[in-house]
Amino acid sequence: MRAVELRALDGKPESMVLVERPVPRPGNRQVLVRIAASPINPSDLAFLSGAYIKKKLPVIPGFEASGTVVAAGGGFMARFLVGKRVACAAPHDGDGAWAEFMVTSAQLCLPLRKNVSFEQGASLLVNPLTAWALMDIAKRGRHRAVAQTAAASALGRMIFRLGQRFGIPVINIVRRDEQVELLQTLGAKYVLNSNDSNFADRLQKLCHELNASLAFDAVAGELTGRVLQALPKQGRLIIYGGLSLQPCKIDPRAFILDDKHVEGFWISRALKKGNPLRQLRNAMQAQKFLASDLKTEVRARLPLEKALIGLQQYAGDMTGGKILLAPNLSGKEIIT
Amino acid sequence: MRAVELRALDGKPESMVLVERPVPRPGNRQVLVRIAASPINPSDLAFLSGAYIKKKLPVIPGFEASGTVVAAGGGFMARFLVGKRVACAAPHDGDGAWAEFMVTSAQLCLPLRKNVSFEQGASLLVNPLTAWALMDIAKRGRHRAVAQTAAASALGRMIFRLGQRFGIPVINIVRRDEQVELLQTLGAKYVLNSNDSNFADRLQKLCHELNASLAFDAVAGELTGRVLQALPKQGRLIIYGGLSLQPCKIDPRAFILDDKHVEGFWISRALKKGNPLRQLRNAMQAQKFLASDLKTEVRARLPLEKALIGLQQYAGDMTGGKILLAPNLSGKEIIT
Repeated sequence: MRAVELRALDGKPESMVLVERPVPRPGNRQVLVRIAASPINPSDLAFLSGAYIKKKLPVIPGFEASGTVVAAGGGFMARFLVGKRVACAAPHDGDGAWAEFMVTSAQLCLPLRKNVSFEQGASLLVNPLTAWALMDIAKRGRHRAVAQTAAASALGRMIFRLGQRFGIPVINIVRRDEQVELLQTLGAKYVLNSNDSNFADRLQKLCHELNASLAFDAVAGELTGRVLQALPKQGRLIIYGGLSLQPCKIDPRAFILDDKHVEGFWISRALKKGNPLRQLRNAMQAQKFLASDLKTEVRARLPLEKALIGLQQYAGDMTGGKILLAPNLSGKEIIT
Repeated sequence: MRAVELRALDGKPESMVLVERPVPRPGNRQVLVRIAASPINPSDLAFLSGAYIKKKLPVIPGFEASGTVVAAGGGFMARFLVGKRVACAAPHDGDGAWAEFMVTSAQLCLPLRKNVSFEQGASLLVNPLTAWALMDIAKRGRHRAVAQTAAASALGRMIFRLGQRFGIPVINIVRRDEQVELLQTLGAKYVLNSNDSNFADRLQKLCHELNASLAFDAVAGELTGRVLQALPKQGRLIIYGGLSLQPCKIDPRAFILDDKHVEGFWISRALKKGNPLRQLRNAMQAQKFLASDLKTEVRARLPLEKALIGLQQYAGDMTGGKILLAPNLSGKEIIT
C-alpha cells in the first residue's frame, strides 16, 4: 500500500515521504480499515513538530479517518464491524491514517449512518464527537452556561451551535477582532477578545451573571488560569487542546480557596474508557447533526502524494475549512 | 478587648498595631470564643503580605486558634458549643484570632478532647486536621502510595507519619539536602530533593513502582507540573498551599492525554462543606494522635503585644516549631 511516512519530528518537509509498505494485519480486537479520507487537524501539525504525543519513528501520521472495515483480527466487536463504513481513530501507538489502509482497535471505530458521506465521516471524531461529548458533560452536569476558548475554531463553532440547540448559553473567547465579528455574524451573543484590556473583568462578570460553572479550553498557557479565575466557585475547566504550545499557568488559590478543578478530555480516550453503548448512542446521535450544527467545511481533497502541499495550505489558514487526504475516494468525489 | 489590627497588606511592621476594640457579638449560627492561643502559620505570613486571601481592612489576622466558647448567637450547633473548649477557624470574611475574643461560625469550631491542651488544640485545624483529611482521601480512594511536596514542613511530617501508621508509602519531596537528611532520620524511605539533576526521572520511576496515584502539593509553581507529570495515568494532584508564590505551571498534555486531575484542599472549606458528623468524627479521631503522629512542636508562646516579634522570628525559621500568640493562657503555661 502507499503511505505517508514520518521520519523525524522536526517539521521539515524532507522528514515526510511517500512510501510503499505491506498492508498491515489486524491483531485480536483489531480491524483493518480501507481509508477513504483523513483530515489534517491542528493535532497533526502539533504531532509533526514534536509538540504532541510521541510515537516511535518512522510512523504514519493521521489521527482520524473514515473508511470501510475490510478485515478483523478477532473479537466480537471487530467481527461485527467487517464490511461496515466507519469513522475511526488511529491507535495510541503505531501507524495512523495517512495511508491506503490502517489497523486500529475495534473500540476506536464507530459505524457511520447511511446518509453520512465518507467526507463528513472523516472528521467525525476529533471535532463533532468532541463537541458533542463536551456539551453532553455540560448537560449532564446541569451547568447553566459554559465558557470556551478558541471559540472561532471549527470545534468551537460546533460547541456554540450545540449550545444554541440545547439552550445552554456559551461565552465565546477568541483572540482577534475578526473572530469576534465572525461569531457575532453566526448569532453569538457573548463574544470576548482575550486581548482586550478589560477582558478579565468582563469575562468574570459574564461568568457570574450566567452562572457559567464549566469551561472548555483548547489554548492552555496564561489563558487557562484567566478563564479558571473568572468562573464562579467550584468551577470546572476541561482542557482538550494546547494551541498556545505553552504550559497552563494557574494561580493555586483558584484550587485551594475556590474549590475549582482542572481536568482533560481526549476523544480517543473517551471512546476507550466510557460505556461502549453510551459511546455508540452518542456517536449515532451526533451524526444526525453532521449536516447542520456539526457540519465540517471541506476546502480540498488531496491524494496522499500531495500531503505536504495540504499541510502547508492548512498551516497557513486553519479556519478556512478542512483539507482531507483521500487515498481511496472515487473520482467524482474529489474536489481538488 | 485587646486585638492585633492589620491596616495594610504591605508587610510593613507599622501596618500592624495593638488596639482596644469592643468585644464582638455573635450572630445567628455563630459563637463567641475566648481565645486561648493562636499559632503563626505560613498562611498568616502570606496573608499579611497580600499574597493570600483578601479581606476588608482594617482586620484582625489569625486563621486558627483554641479557646472556650463563651456565648452563642443562636442555632442548635452554636448553643451546643457554649462552655466547650474548642479548636476554631476564623470566618472567611472578617476578623480573625489574634485577639482576646473572636466571633466565628459554629461550623468552624470543633470540640477538644479532655486530654488535649489549648496549646496543641490551637494548631489542630491547619496542620493535623489537614494532614488527617488528606490521608483520609488517600485511604478512601485506595491509593497504593502518595507523593508530597514540602515534605519537611510540620504538615508534611504529619502526612509522612500518618502514611506509616496507615501503611501507605509516602514519597517525600523537599528542596534542600538537610531536609533529605532530616526526613531520613525520622525513618522516611523515599526522599527526593527537587533540585537534584535526576529528580524528574527518579520521581517518575518511584511513582510508577509504588503506584503513587495521588499527590499533595503545598508549593505550586513549576513543581506542580513536575509532580503531576511523574504520576501514573489518571493521577490526581491536590494543592493545599502555594509556598513558592508562583502560579502552577502544568503541561496540558498531562490533562488531555494522561487523564490527570488537579484540585484543591482547604480545611476551612472542608469543614463547611463536608458531612458535619463525618467532620466531627475525623476531628475526634485526629485528636487521638496529637501527642504522637500529629504533635505540633511549640517554640514559644507570646502575648499579643509581642505579635510582631513572633512574626519576625517565625519568618526567619519556619521549621523550628510553632510560635503561639496566647492572649488568655494562664501564667504557668507560658513558655517565653
